Amino acid sequence: MGALDECHYNVELENGINVGECVELGSEGETGNRAIEDAVGVLLQGLGEDINREGLRKTPLRVAKALREGTRGYKQKVNDIVSGALFPEAGLESKFGHAGGAGGLVIVRDLDHFSYCESCLLPFQVKCHVGYVPSGQRVVGLSKLSRVAEVFAKRLQDPQRLADEVCSALQQGIKPTGVAVVLQCSHIHFPDFESAIFDPNHQGWVKISVMSGSGVFDNEKADSWTDFLGLLRFRGINVDDACSRVSVNKSWCPSQSFRKMGASDSAMLSAVSSILSSLGEDPSRKELAETPGRFVKWLLNFKNSNLDMKLNGFVRSKRDCLTPNGDLSCNEEHICSELNLSFWSQCEHHLLPFHGVVHIGYFSSNRINPVGKSLLQSVVHFYGFKLQVQERLTRQIAETVSSFLGEDVMVVVEASHTCMISRGIEKFGSSTATVAVLGRFSTDPTARAKFLQIIRNSS
Amino acid sequence: MGALDECHYNVELENGINVGECVELGSEGETGNRAIEDAVGVLLQGLGEDINREGLRKTPLRVAKALREGTRGYKQKVNDIVSGALFPEAGLESKFGHAGGAGGLVIVRDLDHFSYCESCLLPFQVKCHVGYVPSGQRVVGLSKLSRVAEVFAKRLQDPQRLADEVCSALQQGIKPTGVAVVLQCSHIHFPDFESAIFDPNHQGWVKISVMSGSGVFDNEKADSWTDFLGLLRFRGINVDDACSRVSVNKSWCPSQSFRKMGASDSAMLSAVSSILSSLGEDPSRKELAETPGRFVKWLLNFKNSNLDMKLNGFVRSKRDCLTPNGDLSCNEEHICSELNLSFWSQCEHHLLPFHGVVHIGYFSSNRINPVGKSLLQSVVHFYGFKLQVQERLTRQIAETVSSFLGEDVMVVVEASHTCMISRGIEKFGSSTATVAVLGRFSTDPTARAKFLQIIRNSS
Repeated sequence: MGALDECHYNVELENGINVGECVELGSEGETGNRAIEDAVGVLLQGLGEDINREGLRKTPLRVAKALREGTRGYKQKVNDIVSGALFPEAGLESKFGHAGGAGGLVIVRDLDHFSYCESCLLPFQVKCHVGYVPSGQRVVGLSKLSRVAEVFAKRLQDPQRLADEVCSALQQGIKPTGVAVVLQCSHIHFPDFESAIFDPNHQGWVKISVMSGSGVFDNEKADSWTDFLGLLRFRGINVDDACSRVSVNKSWCPSQSFRKMGASDSAMLSAVSSILSSLGEDPSRKELAETPGRFVKWLLNFKNSNLDMKLNGFVRSKRDCLTPNGDLSCNEEHICSELNLSFWSQCEHHLLPFHGVVHIGYFSSNRINPVGKSLLQSVVHFYGFKLQVQERLTRQIAETVSSFLGEDVMVVVEASHTCMISRGIEKFGSSTATVAVLGRFSTDPTARAKFLQIIRNSS
Repeated sequence: MGALDECHYNVELENGINVGECVELGSEGETGNRAIEDAVGVLLQGLGEDINREGLRKTPLRVAKALREGTRGYKQKVNDIVSGALFPEAGLESKFGHAGGAGGLVIVRDLDHFSYCESCLLPFQVKCHVGYVPSGQRVVGLSKLSRVAEVFAKRLQDPQRLADEVCSALQQGIKPTGVAVVLQCSHIHFPDFESAIFDPNHQGWVKISVMSGSGVFDNEKADSWTDFLGLLRFRGINVDDACSRVSVNKSWCPSQSFRKMGASDSAMLSAVSSILSSLGEDPSRKELAETPGRFVKWLLNFKNSNLDMKLNGFVRSKRDCLTPNGDLSCNEEHICSELNLSFWSQCEHHLLPFHGVVHIGYFSSNRINPVGKSLLQSVVHFYGFKLQVQERLTRQIAETVSSFLGEDVMVVVEASHTCMISRGIEKFGSSTATVAVLGRFSTDPTARAKFLQIIRNSS
């Protein structure tokens, strides 16, 4: 509960104007940012990158800013947020029951947040549902429930601890009859290159629901939980399978199942430790002890040189050669397609993952994919497992597959970018599509429209 | 295009750390805020409110901060946002087509923003889809498309002008082959008390889609639009009915259809004009000339004293007396219900609307609502059309209907709060539920659960 008593800044959060942040950037924050920038430089060099190339030149600065912003909760005080927003509100006057400022349940659903996984340093998404039962004839401004959740989300976290800290802080800050918190968390599951190739059904997300309660919600079997979960169900939120406190699987973070690491680059490990220290964390804290190793292991997936060899050794399987989806086309040829080839990649501007699907369209007279779906998927992974930008990924895939599939190729890449949610921008739910068109697709709008329709029909 | 050349502050937006805002709050901004606070005080007094009561004491401060934050786009420069985020990116090397930094379409979908309606000063929601076709072998960081949209959204706006300004600013800032912008805008449609009572099918939202294009998107019939709209369709976004520039209905804002105003409070009108000036707007600009009148007219819906008389004059209609929905209950009585009674209200903390539905449950031995749905709906409107907080609204409805429906009453209020999206917090998609339980509902969890299930089954 550090936020309640150990903080250094008086942060004014109303309307998102974060005065404390400004102060901080002008003083000790700048030194801390410099240390993070240096550490990111070491990591980029460890990946064999030229840290002076245009796309990477400001990456250390961007990463430092994003990390600082994304962990600003360490410097925020719950009491500052809540104290100005407690309002006297009469409860029931004469009747027997609960309502208003006494006893009636108040919940806010579907608050989008992100947090950082303390196991691997990657951001995870949090759909937060929070409620309380007022007491003492006072209620709290609704937005404060979200702002308090944010204080703890903006730290290195584990879902259950996040729920517990939000619950406990609200209980102490509002002193109500009880507080309930349900979090639905989604953590990107990033396979390494081999897993991605050999497990085509690899799931992109690990999901977990956790709950925490205090006061009348202290007991998970309490009737107040039934009411709370009943109100969540109105919005299609079904958390009957929410893990109870005791049954939480400690290794929700997919990086904990990484295969044993070989000797890792000690400069990179030290760099990650230095980042943890700069954020105000203790790298020797038990939960963080393995974090630098896991982060570096994950990051090394994007080292170019390894991947070149791996692709060369890839042999396609023959069973994939027939592609069922297709469409009659002009010129007695068909528009054939390989749809929903999954990819994972790493945004070189922010060192944050983006992932999604690739759709490839091409012309064929006999509806046969001459190289097989697996080879196309491996091309996609080959270009995905790099420091990338989506526009370049799209072009590279198009250029490469055109050597197998003929000159008339259209590639559509659809992706969710972690950098669109886990920095100041926080645009939850947005998605990016990029298109490359070669040969006939670049001159024939009808062919493009047909291929887009094929994709749409498949979904 | 004021943002490109008329700005006073060098605002650093990366990661949402808005340094310019801090500077501004320390200097001229404070004077401006004070003027807005004074104006809000005048408006509250015009509503017959005690500006010193606890819930309202800080309302002028909160409104001033929210308005200042919500119109910060006047002080932001597009060039500052874009210039550091243009990256060299090779286009196709030898092939014939479009991809990468040359010609390939790039779009970002589903960016949530809010803006202020210049006709009535209420916030409206904007789902923004934006794309461009790179040229000159350079691409822009994806988040900048959202940040540029935000510069223009954070002003007093009209949807078509917003789309045009975003489009034009991106065209000038990135200099691509073309820019396309599609906005899906939703404006709350707030009836006055009489309309709400007598038109039970009143729609809560006015929706409009607008588009704007430049370069290869200049012509709405261009093939590039077909590609762009095709990619939106993957996400279920169908804007075939998007208004073209010429056919936009000038009066999308529902306040333009307000009935003729009588003599309005001149102090309140001056107060709104003073707010417009403090935000840096020209109150005599053509589109703003009627805005103070419309805003005051709308605000006066929440003047308590008028409503007391109106409710007293209300006569219920007999045809509503039978309520079909219900449930077998314990004790040989039924849980009867009136569901989805719509309400509109005004958050007294932020002077911003919230609206949603009220569900009322009660016990009855003969499944008959003794007073009729219309009376319950009018009770809901009676307590809605005030400066309110949802907790109090819930309690007041419960206490009042229990005098008609018996002592065992449960009231659930579900609402979307404009103050949860249109200030710094910007939690799009969140919703709030409050519960009041009287008599048996406060002691019998099974009865509560049954009523919640009735609500759920009805949706």
